[in-house]
Amino acid sequence: MTQLEAALRGEITPQMRRVAEREGVEPEIILRGVAAGRVVIPANVNHANLDPAGIGEGLRIKVNANLGTSSAIADVDDELAKLAAAVEAGADTVMDLSSAGDLDAIRRRLLAQCPLPFGSVPIYQAAVEAAKRHGQITAMTADDIFDAIRRHAEDGVDFLTVHCGVTREGVRHLESSGRIAGMVSRGGTFLACWIMANDAENPLYEQFDRLLEIARAHDATLSLGDGMRPGAIADATDRPQVHELVVLGELVERARTAGVQAMVEGPGHLPLDQVAANVAMEKRICRGAPFYVLGPIVTDIAPGYDHITSAIGGALAGMAGADFLCYVTPSEHLALPSARDVREGVIAARIAAHAADIVRLGARASARDEAMSRARRDLDWEQQFRLALDPVRARELHARGAAEEAEACSMCGEFCVFKLLAPK
Amino acid sequence: MTQLEAALRGEITPQMRRVAEREGVEPEIILRGVAAGRVVIPANVNHANLDPAGIGEGLRIKVNANLGTSSAIADVDDELAKLAAAVEAGADTVMDLSSAGDLDAIRRRLLAQCPLPFGSVPIYQAAVEAAKRHGQITAMTADDIFDAIRRHAEDGVDFLTVHCGVTREGVRHLESSGRIAGMVSRGGTFLACWIMANDAENPLYEQFDRLLEIARAHDATLSLGDGMRPGAIADATDRPQVHELVVLGELVERARTAGVQAMVEGPGHLPLDQVAANVAMEKRICRGAPFYVLGPIVTDIAPGYDHITSAIGGALAGMAGADFLCYVTPSEHLALPSARDVREGVIAARIAAHAADIVRLGARASARDEAMSRARRDLDWEQQFRLALDPVRARELHARGAAEEAEACSMCGEFCVFKLLAPK
Repeated sequence: MTQLEAALRGEITPQMRRVAEREGVEPEIILRGVAAGRVVIPANVNHANLDPAGIGEGLRIKVNANLGTSSAIADVDDELAKLAAAVEAGADTVMDLSSAGDLDAIRRRLLAQCPLPFGSVPIYQAAVEAAKRHGQITAMTADDIFDAIRRHAEDGVDFLTVHCGVTREGVRHLESSGRIAGMVSRGGTFLACWIMANDAENPLYEQFDRLLEIARAHDATLSLGDGMRPGAIADATDRPQVHELVVLGELVERARTAGVQAMVEGPGHLPLDQVAANVAMEKRICRGAPFYVLGPIVTDIAPGYDHITSAIGGALAGMAGADFLCYVTPSEHLALPSARDVREGVIAARIAAHAADIVRLGARASARDEAMSRARRDLDWEQQFRLALDPVRARELHARGAAEEAEACSMCGEFCVFKLLAPK
Repeated sequence: MTQLEAALRGEITPQMRRVAEREGVEPEIILRGVAAGRVVIPANVNHANLDPAGIGEGLRIKVNANLGTSSAIADVDDELAKLAAAVEAGADTVMDLSSAGDLDAIRRRLLAQCPLPFGSVPIYQAAVEAAKRHGQITAMTADDIFDAIRRHAEDGVDFLTVHCGVTREGVRHLESSGRIAGMVSRGGTFLACWIMANDAENPLYEQFDRLLEIARAHDATLSLGDGMRPGAIADATDRPQVHELVVLGELVERARTAGVQAMVEGPGHLPLDQVAANVAMEKRICRGAPFYVLGPIVTDIAPGYDHITSAIGGALAGMAGADFLCYVTPSEHLALPSARDVREGVIAARIAAHAADIVRLGARASARDEAMSRARRDLDWEQQFRLALDPVRARELHARGAAEEAEACSMCGEFCVFKLLAPK
């Protein structure tokens, strides 16, 4: 029985209870959210060491860190180090996006070390294996795709990104849309190439019931991928993107009917004034399904700083109702991230998530800000470090300037406002 | 004759012409903006090496970098290095906030090296000198304050932060407001202490005409300081803050009547959902006067990353109509910034400004994003570096992962979407 099926029967599962405890709400709230499809608990029955988390309406915004090899750099120890960095920095979930090396082995090693909900994109594996065996991605068959998905689900992957909304009709819109950057979703691109080369419909769309069956058997949550997400500010919120969202809206309902948990992925690159509109569209068209955004990146001109461009977009999206932020690291658009990039990316996304949670959850989130403000006023540095999102960095920067005996920091020195105005 | 007086006579000054050229608009647009008080051109007649910039409605959002010594770290060479870092990173203006060392000498050395509009906070000097001479800040006299202002204006300071809105009435509101963090504006705190100790009205408010006379004589722009700005999310948009804004609204009108250019400073620490409201209030109450915000910082819990918390708030404020962003560096709340912090702070604020400019100015700003997107699609790396906000950082990160012969970056390697979907 999936979390959704249990919720529909009014049954509070241990996973719901744990999520309620972590969120500081009553289990009934989680039950109702899951039953309505507005909350998902990605918790594959085969993920043994999982500490489950909930994603959706009324819950703390979650942050995902992407890991995984590429054909340029494929070292499983690197990826294990990145997993450790992501966990240490406070990521809520991770995804393995590996596309080189022994993909089954990498996934299993990462999963075995991962207490966080774990996601993957099985189409990568189907495509990469087809390229190895037949020399081209487009030689993969529908069976190859579903076989990869089955392997991931059986291994215990908690949420599966599946680009079911990349359809023949969508590709037709893409071709006539005059986009600058075309498609930038890797999985979506694999499928678009496949559709064009085989002159056939996307198997993930055409055989969606087959997908639902696998997902239901392991309670793998579907993360309905946005293959048509814009990869440039100039391409944002266009016909191909919104067409895909409409397709996904229908698939969300089919998933719910089948007892399968589903969330929806979203942009990508968006100008600031289109962020809230994208969230509102998703929430309406997909009937409140949790919204998982990548970024959004709010300007294209800051390579090296896309953790910041994304923190801006992510905070805005979170305030508008997005539930789940995929981090973006400083090396986005430039290179495979290092463990250090992973850390920077997680922290930046957590800042965005928390800034939005202050608005979204009220005192449940802002109590920590209030405690920090009291500690600042009282010049209680140890308490400030304890409350900091990154105590290590805060301590490091403070130590750089501080005279041993000084109460105040080196910013204002003896003219510290908190000393001047302290109650006598 | 000040820029404002010239504009009111319909006279296009060389400064207006230069600003128009830099913004890519007709000089008449600048003339009209200055005449209406919706644009300021901080250009002290004594700042010899100035390349003037405009701040306000319809113009590119500007970024300020704060420099200056503190009693803990006071080395003029450090500050000169920070000035160079700020200019190199693309700051539009700088402010000298020094509060230790030979303040006149530091200011003059910085000004001599500074082609950017240069701001300062003369009350620091008045207070620090009073503390030196009399053992306490509150011993400063009205004459001390106006004498410091006069020296700064005579030296060529282009914009003067003056906390004219910290009044007896404001202090009364502060005392009864139940704020967590009290006042966090250093200049505002000096004046509040003075008001309380001397049981007298703020000379900058009571003798505002005396201030106008000095400003008008050198065309120093007034930056009406927000002494009551919130220093904690919990204190945002409260009675003391809004009371001060109302006072500043009246002073903006008095400045305009006197032919003196004026802008208004704003928060500070604000939750995301109060950012737009703060901009709307300022624009209405101060009749379109340029709005200069510090941050806003959208969560208190990220010391070490306040360049990011501020980039989030600054982008949102800019989209809502703020004209001028004061950078915040990673060392905010922890230490006096290093030259490296200055660079990080400027870049983060420029990202926020540009993201907002895409919405504010349309193609005038987004043409660069579009060119970047084309360069990405074409895998034209040199063009991507040229268009990047920080070409050095972008090149560095790309080089880390790149195989010499590889066209694509190490993120996706051979499965780069732009290679898969490139026109055959």
